[in-house]
Amino acid sequence: MKGRPPRIGVVGGRDAEASLLAAAEDIGRELAERGAIVVCGGMGGIMEAAARGCVRAGGIVVGILPTESAADANAHVTIPVVTGMNEGRNIIVVRTSEALIAIGGSYGTLSEIALALRLNVPVFGLNTWGLRQPGSAAAEPALTCVESAQEAVERAWQVVQANRLPERRAKRQQ
Amino acid sequence: MKGRPPRIGVVGGRDAEASLLAAAEDIGRELAERGAIVVCGGMGGIMEAAARGCVRAGGIVVGILPTESAADANAHVTIPVVTGMNEGRNIIVVRTSEALIAIGGSYGTLSEIALALRLNVPVFGLNTWGLRQPGSAAAEPALTCVESAQEAVERAWQVVQANRLPERRAKRQQ
Amino acid sequence: MKGRPPRIGVVGGRDAEASLLAAAEDIGRELAERGAIVVCGGMGGIMEAAARGCVRAGGIVVGILPTESAADANAHVTIPVVTGMNEGRNIIVVRTSEALIAIGGSYGTLSEIALALRLNVPVFGLNTWGLRQPGSAAAEPALTCVESAQEAVERAWQVVQANRLPERRAKRQQ
Amino acid sequence: MKGRPPRIGVVGGRDAEASLLAAAEDIGRELAERGAIVVCGGMGGIMEAAARGCVRAGGIVVGILPTESAADANAHVTIPVVTGMNEGRNIIVVRTSEALIAIGGSYGTLSEIALALRLNVPVFGLNTWGLRQPGSAAAEPALTCVESAQEAVERAWQVVQANRLPERRAKRQQ
Repeated sequence: MKGRPPRIGVVGGRDAEASLLAAAEDIGRELAERGAIVVCGGMGGIMEAAARGCVRAGGIVVGILPTESAADANAHVTIPVVTGMNEGRNIIVVRTSEALIAIGGSYGTLSEIALALRLNVPVFGLNTWGLRQPGSAAAEPALTCVESAQEAVERAWQVVQANRLPERRAKRQQ
Repeated sequence: MKGRPPRIGVVGGRDAEASLLAAAEDIGRELAERGAIVVCGGMGGIMEAAARGCVRAGGIVVGILPTESAADANAHVTIPVVTGMNEGRNIIVVRTSEALIAIGGSYGTLSEIALALRLNVPVFGLNTWGLRQPGSAAAEPALTCVESAQEAVERAWQVVQANRLPERRAKRQQ
Repeated sequence: MKGRPPRIGVVGGRDAEASLLAAAEDIGRELAERGAIVVCGGMGGIMEAAARGCVRAGGIVVGILPTESAADANAHVTIPVVTGMNEGRNIIVVRTSEALIAIGGSYGTLSEIALALRLNVPVFGLNTWGLRQPGSAAAEPALTCVESAQEAVERAWQVVQANRLPERRAKRQQ
Repeated sequence: MKGRPPRIGVVGGRDAEASLLAAAEDIGRELAERGAIVVCGGMGGIMEAAARGCVRAGGIVVGILPTESAADANAHVTIPVVTGMNEGRNIIVVRTSEALIAIGGSYGTLSEIALALRLNVPVFGLNTWGLRQPGSAAAEPALTCVESAQEAVERAWQVVQANRLPERRAKRQQ
């Protein structure tokens, strides 16, 4: 387990504006530089930008595909995981990630944020959905908003390291 | 197809306050009285209340279970569908429903609202999440908020009938 | 639970010879006459024949669909369950069934037999695969071969009743 | 695509005899030496032996887990993919593999062989199930039996290379 590289998910829509695509590519690159594996949905848009950034920095990209064929993965995916489950694969992207960075405002991204909240996967949102619980005027506290690609990576990295600590301690004590 | 009963999903958390449980039971009953099948996640809380209302009015409840055993369904489920997929079954609840009524503010419910938006399943929220797209101060227009059990049923019923119309017309013209 | 109708799966390929289609229709009819719900994959061939037999005898057919749309169900499916998971839905057909009747020799049918063996769902094969464990010349004992539609229904019915007995006894003792 | 390492699945039960575990470890090692990624179900027995062999030779192991936690992966899995789908994950193991090596005679392994046949994933069986189509005395021709770990690797490797050829040719012509 100790040697297992951190897995950080990057999710966002197939159609995204240029500034968010640039942020996704930065995030992919910085995650690779820290030794993390990028987990994504394997298709275009934000997923492709994050994969490109990661691979160009020498990292590994796991693309969890909705379709029935590995040939549908974007060109930067190192390891396509072929689910054939369509949007049913979103939950596998979330479960596989030790932390999730959500970029932009598509409905698919919203579903991944919601599943992360449901499954206690720490989630960091960049220019993403605002969520308010019923009757509340305040933003959902479990969705952490970040202001930049750098902050997203730093926060995700910290929480993954913190969550791995008790594991290490437990192993040492055995 | 014409004789196939409408399928309307009712989603909400396992822990819910009394007023929402009462609303869910009302919704289940009124759907049964109109001849709809209630689709739900098959477990406790809102799911069980909606199932109880439906079955007591003579309706059929399909419970799409997260677990590996039909024995885990609540007592009012007529037809358990056993997925063994844990929260991965949420998307099947959504896809199976011609319209979705979402009650209350759990994270699982949020994931079902998001999946409905993603998959173009009309969704009506009763005392549920407020959603704002990035940078917007306005509520997400595709999530229709309703004020009562009766309004939820009426709106869901209307949209299901409207969506079935072109189908009927197309069949008649063949 | 007591009032919950038995769910019996009927699986087989989209392409099947006439005699097997006739057997599937007989099986569907006889299951409906005994009050069982027919669970199937919702598409053509054996699935459609079993559904036709069931519905014409007044029964209910649950069709667990591989596609993303209820419109893909065959015309006899009462309740389409829309998975969008392609062949990934086979395991849900198996898990949902209290006993499984497998007809003919397609690869999909083989996968459903195998999953039933794996999940301890009793499975009865009519003109279906021969299975031999490694190094064995004898047929796999857990796959019961039957000779007719009538025998398939009778054997499946018996095992479902037997499996429900302890449940009833346990309930009575509470 | 060209640079994407071949993905070869190794499937087999959690309980397996020593000679098969040794074969699985050999297979994992030889696949790693050729530069393939080993895809497996991530748990114990054959899955663990194949993972061990692969990792000790410097390879990468993708473990597609049935459970809800990456902590359930065996110690040699490099990249756990967390499905939370229980045996529903078997089809993802198969779909993700460009060729499949099936070892031994568990029911789960049979389901993976059957899904591979259904989905046209080339499958090579070592000391595994004998399959006969209805009414046939001959072994199913699409399941290739191999006699050793070396033959399994060689045959799987060849078919993956052959299937990648048209892709390369098509790319060159564009």
